[in-house]
Amino acid sequence: MSDIVDHRLRRLWTPEGGAAAPLPDRAVRWLVERIGVLGTTAPISPDSAIKVPDSRLSAGARAELAAVVGETQVLTDREERLGRSGGLSYLDLIRRRAIGGRLPDGLAVPDAVVLPADPAQVQRVLEVCVAQNVAVVPFGGGTSVVGGVNALRGDKASVIALDLRRLDRLVSVDPVSRIAVLGAGVRAPEAERLLAAHGLTLGHVPQSFERATIGGFAATRSAGQASSGYGRFEDMVSGVRLATPAGEWRLGVAPASAAGPDLRQLAVGSEGALGVITEVALRVRPVPVARRYEGYVLDGWERGSAAVRELAQRHVLADVTRLSDVDESEVSLALNAGPKTAALRGYLRARGVTEPCLLILGWECGSTREISLRRKETLRVLRKSGAVRIGRSLGESWRHGRFSGPRQRDALLDQGVCVETLETAAHWSKLSELRDAVRAALRESLGSPIVMCHVSHAYETGASLYFTAIAARRDDDPTGQWERAKLAACEAITGGEGGPLGTISHHHAVGVDHAPYLGREIGAVGLAVLAAAKQAVDPTGILNPGKLLRGS
Amino acid sequence: MSDIVDHRLRRLWTPEGGAAAPLPDRAVRWLVERIGVLGTTAPISPDSAIKVPDSRLSAGARAELAAVVGETQVLTDREERLGRSGGLSYLDLIRRRAIGGRLPDGLAVPDAVVLPADPAQVQRVLEVCVAQNVAVVPFGGGTSVVGGVNALRGDKASVIALDLRRLDRLVSVDPVSRIAVLGAGVRAPEAERLLAAHGLTLGHVPQSFERATIGGFAATRSAGQASSGYGRFEDMVSGVRLATPAGEWRLGVAPASAAGPDLRQLAVGSEGALGVITEVALRVRPVPVARRYEGYVLDGWERGSAAVRELAQRHVLADVTRLSDVDESEVSLALNAGPKTAALRGYLRARGVTEPCLLILGWECGSTREISLRRKETLRVLRKSGAVRIGRSLGESWRHGRFSGPRQRDALLDQGVCVETLETAAHWSKLSELRDAVRAALRESLGSPIVMCHVSHAYETGASLYFTAIAARRDDDPTGQWERAKLAACEAITGGEGGPLGTISHHHAVGVDHAPYLGREIGAVGLAVLAAAKQAVDPTGILNPGKLLRGS
Repeated sequence: MSDIVDHRLRRLWTPEGGAAAPLPDRAVRWLVERIGVLGTTAPISPDSAIKVPDSRLSAGARAELAAVVGETQVLTDREERLGRSGGLSYLDLIRRRAIGGRLPDGLAVPDAVVLPADPAQVQRVLEVCVAQNVAVVPFGGGTSVVGGVNALRGDKASVIALDLRRLDRLVSVDPVSRIAVLGAGVRAPEAERLLAAHGLTLGHVPQSFERATIGGFAATRSAGQASSGYGRFEDMVSGVRLATPAGEWRLGVAPASAAGPDLRQLAVGSEGALGVITEVALRVRPVPVARRYEGYVLDGWERGSAAVRELAQRHVLADVTRLSDVDESEVSLALNAGPKTAALRGYLRARGVTEPCLLILGWECGSTREISLRRKETLRVLRKSGAVRIGRSLGESWRHGRFSGPRQRDALLDQGVCVETLETAAHWSKLSELRDAVRAALRESLGSPIVMCHVSHAYETGASLYFTAIAARRDDDPTGQWERAKLAACEAITGGEGGPLGTISHHHAVGVDHAPYLGREIGAVGLAVLAAAKQAVDPTGILNPGKLLRGS
Repeated sequence: MSDIVDHRLRRLWTPEGGAAAPLPDRAVRWLVERIGVLGTTAPISPDSAIKVPDSRLSAGARAELAAVVGETQVLTDREERLGRSGGLSYLDLIRRRAIGGRLPDGLAVPDAVVLPADPAQVQRVLEVCVAQNVAVVPFGGGTSVVGGVNALRGDKASVIALDLRRLDRLVSVDPVSRIAVLGAGVRAPEAERLLAAHGLTLGHVPQSFERATIGGFAATRSAGQASSGYGRFEDMVSGVRLATPAGEWRLGVAPASAAGPDLRQLAVGSEGALGVITEVALRVRPVPVARRYEGYVLDGWERGSAAVRELAQRHVLADVTRLSDVDESEVSLALNAGPKTAALRGYLRARGVTEPCLLILGWECGSTREISLRRKETLRVLRKSGAVRIGRSLGESWRHGRFSGPRQRDALLDQGVCVETLETAAHWSKLSELRDAVRAALRESLGSPIVMCHVSHAYETGASLYFTAIAARRDDDPTGQWERAKLAACEAITGGEGGPLGTISHHHAVGVDHAPYLGREIGAVGLAVLAAAKQAVDPTGILNPGKLLRGS
């Protein structure tokens, strides 16, 4: 079995060589109590149970693709195709499971997997696909949670997954300018390993870190957990190289420019619909030598979010700044029940904290002196907000578990749980209204779920909101249950009378799931501009059909 | 004479109610000595000497425009039209002057000036112009130095200058989110006055500050002198509202988003070619209450630029950070010759500084404590670079004179001087190579000029370079002299074998002058994408013909 096979959707969050994350018994007991799940097992179906249509790739197209990338790099066997049939959204996961005795519909399987070796081969693959009427879905880590890599065919005769894993090089390093060029297929941990050899880091640590790729980060405007310190991924992008049916496209010759619109910001976030990102030039920084993570508690959401706002507006955010609301904090404490947690509850009560909101702060710096200087300024603000310090162990424990959330979804699915995460961002003055609206929408559409929320990315003008909803799964209609909840949440975000309260996505991207709502955010003119740009670079529409733009 | 008339190109840099900036006698003597000018007077021609064709605006178009904005807001008299016939580039200035006994060609005069009152009127004006085949040149402060507001007609029957000065309101303030919405026609000083009433500031202080407008800043990706502290203008843009022939376009619902490409960054820098910016939502900050400016000297360009690089990469730049090269520093010292300067020269010699490069640092903060903390970190780096502190008076004197450079151009023109400024930016590893290349190009093309250079905007990955070239004017061919120098400089920036060394503009924009070079920077695909976007929003091509995109 090739190493490519671990791309399959089965327990995909397991990092290579790592283990799945089972749910502790107390978590199961707690779920049963809180949302009334019955421990229904929804077993992962064996691959053989999944209906995979025969490959539609024509012999001619296959031969031409093989002529570009080599015979061994065009894969049409069932397992490889199945492994690139989607990302890691709740829908993607349940489409693999026998729920209520049957597999939900909707799995879109590519007709072949093509693995080019370099940007030139990517360019030639696109030329073949235009000539042969083949749709192209760029595939990196396969971690999309919005349907961004679903193998939709559009109006094409067939569809390939263009797996970029062989574009795995650190192409160049400019230590003076602090710029590194990385292949699109480099996964985040490998990027860090390659850069560390030069004493450098990217510092981009999203929850998808273990699997996601440089190209995927750029294509989706990713934001890492340390975005307050390192910026969003688009802030790191100094230049970008794309293959398009209209030809190769390179952008980024200077740190800043007034040479017309910043087209890098059109390429970044283009989700494979305006070109295949093959290389990204990234601003890098020295590997931090000092690190400090710690936990605080603020009393109530309003006080907590106001404190984070003040940190952002005074430019004293820690590199990682993450505030959980009361519900999320309560779940954290419940799942960590024990003597220490009981003591913490008492400690907080004694300090008058009635609605604890956990705040994780993390600094990663070039020296302990720097951390000390920065931390002092942060704490000056926090002190005025009545923050209670609860020590480094909470911070460190968050850091150690910070990639495990997605991995636990398989275990939750095993227990009959519907678990969905969604995220948005809004200006500070609308943040609480937006949070209330999304919570209400999720609560109403999902019955009696647990809805948790945190702020993990703060800016001078606003912040992100990240929701996790956990409900008992409707095994008679798991897809419909998700669709109703998604619709309700998206309407809450974008359907306001005065326009959207927030963005349809802060860092998950548009994909298939958010495409119906994009027009509310960027307007009919914005949609027309994107469609025109797509027409210019991809006149026959082979690139990632149905993503970003509806009906594309 | 209406207050609009001060828009005329004659000594335009004089701020309203302010005075022109004459050259001191010693500066004149120094110029004669250094570049051998003869004190040729090239008098400003009386308006009556300038050939202004009759307005081509049809009676029908005029009537329809008047129906939208009101009869008094459609101006067709000679003086008003002449006042919007161009910006403030060297070419624009000499086109007003009798040089060698005649006025150079090339002045493009609009057929009418139209002054809409609000965004809705702008939208309706565009509809009239589409129907009536009229080109539209959005006109703000008229400070373009790249031909951005030249009244080119393209293939249209006539052309209007769409003067946005009546869009002069602070539309709204959201103090919690620190966002203010300003009309496109608000000039920078007025923006600061309006915001100061709320305790807020934009902090955007380009050399064009006294006249330039919010809409113009956004349309051209302006960068202010305090960009290290406040960011470039595009960093401040939270949202933007445009009128386009395809309809109104509003962007910006959140502090950050992954909802596809960031189309705000397409609107910002669109130079009136993709829409008329009518309102801009801007991130604002509290008015600083403490300020400190001071001067340092570093020994030589390499050491100086390395020090600025280290400040940027360690995130300890002052809000204003401006390094002059040896030539620019020498001119500063020469023009300030006197006992103090002589003492300074001795002081530097005694400290082993043989090639003084002046460094201006300025902090504007919420408290003196904050300045003190930040300054300490900056000085830790500077000390290692061998910087010699020369005190606050140099810093303050720079601050007081920081808008006067452009105003002195009229006086220089009076003396028979050809003076041109141009700017670019590059990654740190290419900065010195680019500086050498542009200096050589200007020196060769201009004979024996003075070429000065400074870095005024520094980033982690690179910096801007701003050149001022001063040469004896070729009165037999002043336009050709400029064209040869401009060509040589642009070739030096963009014509390298491995691609451009830097960007064709860091903050002056593309306009007419840089349009031929844009393709080298964004590629054929980039040009095609921009053309497609323009086609989508402006299918008949009425918007600012000939700017940004050649042949548009």
